[in-house]
Amino acid sequence: MIRLSVDCMGGDHGPSVTLPACRAFLASHPEAELILVGRSDALAPAAGWPRTTLVAASEVVEMTDTLEIALRRKKDSSLRVAVSQVKSDGGEPAAAHACVSAGNTAALMAVSRYVLKTLDGIDRPAIATVIPNERDAYTTVLDLGANIDCSADHLLQFAVMGSALVDAVAGKREPTVGLLNIGEEAIKGGETIKRAGDLLRKAAASGLINFHGNVEGNDIFKGTTDIVVCDGFVGNVLLKASEGLATMLAGFIRQEFTRNLGTRLAALVALPVLNHFKKRVDHRRYNGAALLGLRGLVFKSHGSADAFAFEHALNRAYDAARNGLLDRVHDRILATLAAMPAAAELGDALAADDARV
Amino acid sequence: MIRLSVDCMGGDHGPSVTLPACRAFLASHPEAELILVGRSDALAPAAGWPRTTLVAASEVVEMTDTLEIALRRKKDSSLRVAVSQVKSDGGEPAAAHACVSAGNTAALMAVSRYVLKTLDGIDRPAIATVIPNERDAYTTVLDLGANIDCSADHLLQFAVMGSALVDAVAGKREPTVGLLNIGEEAIKGGETIKRAGDLLRKAAASGLINFHGNVEGNDIFKGTTDIVVCDGFVGNVLLKASEGLATMLAGFIRQEFTRNLGTRLAALVALPVLNHFKKRVDHRRYNGAALLGLRGLVFKSHGSADAFAFEHALNRAYDAARNGLLDRVHDRILATLAAMPAAAELGDALAADDARV
Repeated sequence: MIRLSVDCMGGDHGPSVTLPACRAFLASHPEAELILVGRSDALAPAAGWPRTTLVAASEVVEMTDTLEIALRRKKDSSLRVAVSQVKSDGGEPAAAHACVSAGNTAALMAVSRYVLKTLDGIDRPAIATVIPNERDAYTTVLDLGANIDCSADHLLQFAVMGSALVDAVAGKREPTVGLLNIGEEAIKGGETIKRAGDLLRKAAASGLINFHGNVEGNDIFKGTTDIVVCDGFVGNVLLKASEGLATMLAGFIRQEFTRNLGTRLAALVALPVLNHFKKRVDHRRYNGAALLGLRGLVFKSHGSADAFAFEHALNRAYDAARNGLLDRVHDRILATLAAMPAAAELGDALAADDARV
Repeated sequence: MIRLSVDCMGGDHGPSVTLPACRAFLASHPEAELILVGRSDALAPAAGWPRTTLVAASEVVEMTDTLEIALRRKKDSSLRVAVSQVKSDGGEPAAAHACVSAGNTAALMAVSRYVLKTLDGIDRPAIATVIPNERDAYTTVLDLGANIDCSADHLLQFAVMGSALVDAVAGKREPTVGLLNIGEEAIKGGETIKRAGDLLRKAAASGLINFHGNVEGNDIFKGTTDIVVCDGFVGNVLLKASEGLATMLAGFIRQEFTRNLGTRLAALVALPVLNHFKKRVDHRRYNGAALLGLRGLVFKSHGSADAFAFEHALNRAYDAARNGLLDRVHDRILATLAAMPAAAELGDALAADDARV
C-alpha cells in the first residue's frame, strides 16, 4: 500500500482542481491511499471518500507569498502540513510515502528542506522533470531552478540523483547522463563545467553513473541521453523558453487553420491528425517534478495544472514511492560518497554549513 | 553604395551555397557591391559578375579546426581575408562595410577580435540574433555563446549594443530591454544578475537604454521586450534547445500526417495551411547573427545554411551597414561610458587587459 499526502489548496485553482484529480486517482489506483490536506470547508466534498484521510490546515501559502511568510508565518499552511506527512520522526515511519503540491515552487522547496532536511552528502536538493523527446521517450532534466550558481560537485550530485530517479520511475538500470554545455568537446564551457565533466568521468569510471559526455541544448529534444544535468538558472530558462516556444507554435497553427473559410474546412479534415499531434505533445502528461535530495519524497505540480495534469503528478509520485525512489537516491548518494572521498568531504563541509543555517 | 565581403568557403556547403546566394543578392540589391573571398578555383564561376571583386585566399578554416589553427596557422584563410576587408587602417576607409561568413563561430569571433579589435569600452564582443515571437515580430537575443561567465558590466554592454542594433536594423529608436532571469522580481537570481539589474536601471535613468526589467524564458517568444540580454552560456543553450524543440515538433507533425492513407489525404487538404505555417516559422529567414562590439561589422550565417538562408544573412549585413550600425554602436557605447563612469573605468581596465593578451 502506498499513501500520498496532497496539498489540496496549492496552485492557481486549489480544491476545484486537486479534489477531482484525487478522486480520479483513487479510482485508478485501488491500492493507494490519500491524505488530503487543506481548510476543512474546502475538503468537505471529500468526506466519506474511500481510502482517504482528511487533515485540516488553517492557512494557505499564496503564489505571491515571500519565503519568509511561507517559512515563518504560515506554520499551519496546507503546503507545510502536507510536506510534514512524509517526515519520519525517530524511527517512526512517516504518515505518507510521498507528497504532492501545486504550490509556489520556491516555498515548497524551502519548506521541504526545512521540514525534511537533506540526505547525507546532499547540499542542495534539485528539481527534476521529464521533457518529451524525438524518440517518443522522455529526457529527465535537472536542476530546473532550485539552485543557481551550481558547483561541479552539485552537478555530480544531480547526475547521481537523476540516475536514481530514472532507474526507479522508468526502470532503466544504467541511464545515460549528459552534461549540458555549449559544445560537445570536453574543453568547452567555463571552469565549473569542465570540473563537473572531470567529476562525472571519474564517477563513471567508478561505475556510479553512465556518463555520456557533454550535450547541447538540442540534445534534450533529440533524446541523446536519458538525463541532462545543468545549473538551475540554465534549466529554468530552458524549460520556460521551451514552454513559450511550444505555446507560440500552437498559437500559430491555430491561427493558420482559422484564417478563412477554406482553412477552417481544411482544419475540419485535419482535426483527427491535429488532435493526435496535440495529445502527443500535451505537456499535462509530463506534469509532476521531483524534488530530489530530501529525506522524503515531494513532487511539485505545475501551478496552472488542471485536474488531468494534477492527476499525472499524483501518478508520478505514486510510481516513485512504489519503486522506492527515496532509498534508491540515498543508496546511490552513499555509494558516491564512498567511492569519491573528495565529494564526501565536500558533502560533510556543506552539511556542517547547513547545520549552522 | 554598400560593399560586403563574403567568406565564400565557410559553412557546411561552401561555394555551392554562398555563390548562388551572392548572385541572388546582387540581383535584388542593384546598389550593392560584393568582395568574394575564397580559393581561386572555387570562385571561378563568379568571374565577370557585375559589381563583384574576387579576392583569392589559399586556405580554408574547417569546422573542426581549433582556434589555434584558425588564428596562428591559417593566416591566408578565406575567413580571415574576408574579415580583414572591413578593417580600416589609419584613417583609410575599409574595403568593405560588412563581412559575412558561415564559418566556425568560435574561429570567426576570435579572428574578428584579433584582426579588428574591440570598440573602446567593450571588453567582450557579443553575438546577437533575432528570434520570432508571438507578435509576428522579432526578439533580439544576446549573447548567444561568445561569452560565458558574464559580469554585470558585460550584460550592460550587451544591452547598449543590442539597443543600437535594433535601432539601426529595425528602426526602433528606443527598443525595450529585458534581463533574462528566473523570475520577474528584482530580487531573483544570483549576485551577477542582481548587479546587472541595478546597472541596467541606472542606465535607463540616464536615458541610455529603455529597460523593462527582468524577463523569463517564455518572454522571448511572447515578445515582451524587443531585446533580451543574457550570459552567452545561457543564450547558447536556449537557442539550441529552441531549435531542437522546433525540429522535434515539425517531425511529429510530419509523422502524424503520414501515418496512413487517411492522414495523407488530410495532409493533402491541409497542405496550403501547413505550408503557410512552415513559411512563417522558417528559421532560414532569421539567419545572420551580428558580432557586436568590434571595430567593423561581421555577420555570422548558420553553418548549415542553404542559399536562401545565406542570402538572408547577406541582406541583414547589408541593412546593418546601410543604417550605420557600427557608428550607432560606437556612439551608444561612448554615451554610456560618459554617463556611467564606473562602467568606463571597468572598460579601461579591461581594455588594458586586452592589450596585454
